[in-house]
Amino acid sequence: MTALDNRTERRWASLDLNEILSNWARHAPSGSGSDGAVDPEVIVFGGGIPDPESLPSAGLIAAARRVLEHDGPGALEYGGTQGELILREWLAERLNRQEDAGVSAEHFVLTNGSGQAIEMAIRTFVDPGDVILVERPTYSGGLRPMRAYKAEIADVEMDADGVLPEAFEQTVTRLVAAGKRPKLFYTMPTLHNPTGITTSVPRREAIVELCDRFVILIAEDDAYGEIRVEGQRPPSYYKIAGGQGALRLSTVSKMLATGLRIGWITGPKEIVDTFVRLRYDGGLSPFLVRTVAEFCVSGDEDRHLETVLPIYKEKRDRMLSALDERCARYASWTHPEGGFFVWVTLADAVDPAKLQDAMAQEKVIARPGTQFFAGAGGARNLRLCFSTATIPEIEEGIRRLGRAIEQAV
Amino acid sequence: MTALDNRTERRWASLDLNEILSNWARHAPSGSGSDGAVDPEVIVFGGGIPDPESLPSAGLIAAARRVLEHDGPGALEYGGTQGELILREWLAERLNRQEDAGVSAEHFVLTNGSGQAIEMAIRTFVDPGDVILVERPTYSGGLRPMRAYKAEIADVEMDADGVLPEAFEQTVTRLVAAGKRPKLFYTMPTLHNPTGITTSVPRREAIVELCDRFVILIAEDDAYGEIRVEGQRPPSYYKIAGGQGALRLSTVSKMLATGLRIGWITGPKEIVDTFVRLRYDGGLSPFLVRTVAEFCVSGDEDRHLETVLPIYKEKRDRMLSALDERCARYASWTHPEGGFFVWVTLADAVDPAKLQDAMAQEKVIARPGTQFFAGAGGARNLRLCFSTATIPEIEEGIRRLGRAIEQAV
Repeated sequence: MTALDNRTERRWASLDLNEILSNWARHAPSGSGSDGAVDPEVIVFGGGIPDPESLPSAGLIAAARRVLEHDGPGALEYGGTQGELILREWLAERLNRQEDAGVSAEHFVLTNGSGQAIEMAIRTFVDPGDVILVERPTYSGGLRPMRAYKAEIADVEMDADGVLPEAFEQTVTRLVAAGKRPKLFYTMPTLHNPTGITTSVPRREAIVELCDRFVILIAEDDAYGEIRVEGQRPPSYYKIAGGQGALRLSTVSKMLATGLRIGWITGPKEIVDTFVRLRYDGGLSPFLVRTVAEFCVSGDEDRHLETVLPIYKEKRDRMLSALDERCARYASWTHPEGGFFVWVTLADAVDPAKLQDAMAQEKVIARPGTQFFAGAGGARNLRLCFSTATIPEIEEGIRRLGRAIEQAV
Repeated sequence: MTALDNRTERRWASLDLNEILSNWARHAPSGSGSDGAVDPEVIVFGGGIPDPESLPSAGLIAAARRVLEHDGPGALEYGGTQGELILREWLAERLNRQEDAGVSAEHFVLTNGSGQAIEMAIRTFVDPGDVILVERPTYSGGLRPMRAYKAEIADVEMDADGVLPEAFEQTVTRLVAAGKRPKLFYTMPTLHNPTGITTSVPRREAIVELCDRFVILIAEDDAYGEIRVEGQRPPSYYKIAGGQGALRLSTVSKMLATGLRIGWITGPKEIVDTFVRLRYDGGLSPFLVRTVAEFCVSGDEDRHLETVLPIYKEKRDRMLSALDERCARYASWTHPEGGFFVWVTLADAVDPAKLQDAMAQEKVIARPGTQFFAGAGGARNLRLCFSTATIPEIEEGIRRLGRAIEQAV
């Protein structure tokens, strides 16, 4: 059709893509993990996805209709990069009710899930070579953008009460002595992914003191905070720190649906303004955000949580009792007060490589513990997600896991 | 409530935010322009926003309902970072019908509007100091991320047939001789923003030859390609280049609604795979994308274009004839075959600073030409958007502009 069709040789035809990629693109790791396409006979305790049966489709349809019928043009035009006010106001009121945080809509910026929130925090505060502190283990989806932006990652030990302030202080002191710049503490102190652990309030207070002393910004990922089925909600780092030097990152992914891709950062106004300003993607869809806001403001979100929290409690309980029955001999595990995960530690007698093979044979999938460590570690761990599978699948899946473990001894 | 409440002095309280921002954040420019909050008596020929009266709210409500009723869980779970297949298939079929491009769904990645598409192309291919070539003038929303990623920007002259290949070659030759690395040509060859000009096919062919010779990736922004009210659609750079060394960036923002935030990049599979991989935001909302896909696949998008294109033709014609009537003495302007904009050049007799004041007095807003230049330039230009205002507003607004120009002579 054009003069170029007959050229036999173009430089692009033989070009190695690596020759033209930016340095950033050449070294950055892949941005997402996945359980892959899966045989329907396999039972998957994989990604953190809400219970599919109770997704509130009807409420979302009704919310979308109300939004477009009442203000179609408003919802279908650019909304700016901070995100629609109506959702930020609802989020502020909710957080104030939960912990008297003293926030208003101006303390929130909406993001494309907590994934974009994490990336935004990193690129705004972390230069290549700066250090990000994380828990050991930590959320795998946080590690990928940290590596993409060439942060050095330093992990800090945790126990059943969360991160250890003494270990945190030692790590920071060692880093500073080595001339490093610890910039950010990325932490999931509540219903932690992958372990389900909640960091105690005294530990949080000690961490705030340390982060203030060393001028380290706390980025609290609270993706699972609303999925609490027992125990008390602790105050956020943002609250404990008096609204200074701390961000709270969250999302509707766990409390509502992963397919909406709406997250947010709560933080000091000056930092939120910086996130809003340094953004080139035009912000989230006002139609989408207003639909979710309408769902929330109408009370549907509270009703939805009243429906799903008992389901998650039941699923957690069934998984824990199945583990007791089938896996107690060669494994131990956490007893989370909510969230989506149980974290399994295998006895020394279990051969992790053999276990992988045996689980494949038995057709049961869990996330390998190694994904959740910044460095070596996790070979003797598995993360089991109890939110997505049905109760019969949970019981059958843990039965299969028990058999696989026996085979790997 | 906590031990920290009584501390009188925290380091964060007195910290200058600049001390802890990354280098990237310290130098990056603000990501969005805006016409600001506007007095309702002011007539705005500002941002490129579709006709508000004809936004297809009812069709989108129906599409959202069909999506959630037929596959709620599918639409409400993570969809991966390439974007829902159904929309990529529709886009591929459409492009093949328009220009026999030989593409399939694998040649597309969905993005948060064309804004994210532009940022993705830059960060994947451009290191700080590398050169991005642009037209003179060019889209202001493209310049901001180029500056954020510290690209050097080199602009190339254009005339009524688009960019000048001789000027392009001279610029590239000069850059290469100076040891620079021209990496990307960001261009809007069809219904160009801000001028409305369409680059001729021979010019495109010459540019492809040059970009192949110098190994420069072409990033064609085709945001306005569907908004053609007369003349022939030329083949894309991607088509002319035989699917190598060229990307096509587009969006539903102009053909449907800006508030949906769905864009895409079409490109060689290897490059698309790289974009999909190097992404940390979890991808677009499957619910949102499937809603738009359902709207498109059902034929609603074609019907919508049949409705709006005559409206845009009428608005353009009314603006051009109002300009003839009111502004011909001290200004000239482009006659675009579509898109949303007319580009005005003021006669030397007009004082641009006086014109700003007179336009504020007359209550009419247009985008100053300076926004669209990488360097100096544009002081004698205005971009007028005809898509958003009503026809009476267009006629009254141009009357006001005519009076303002007379006052600025």
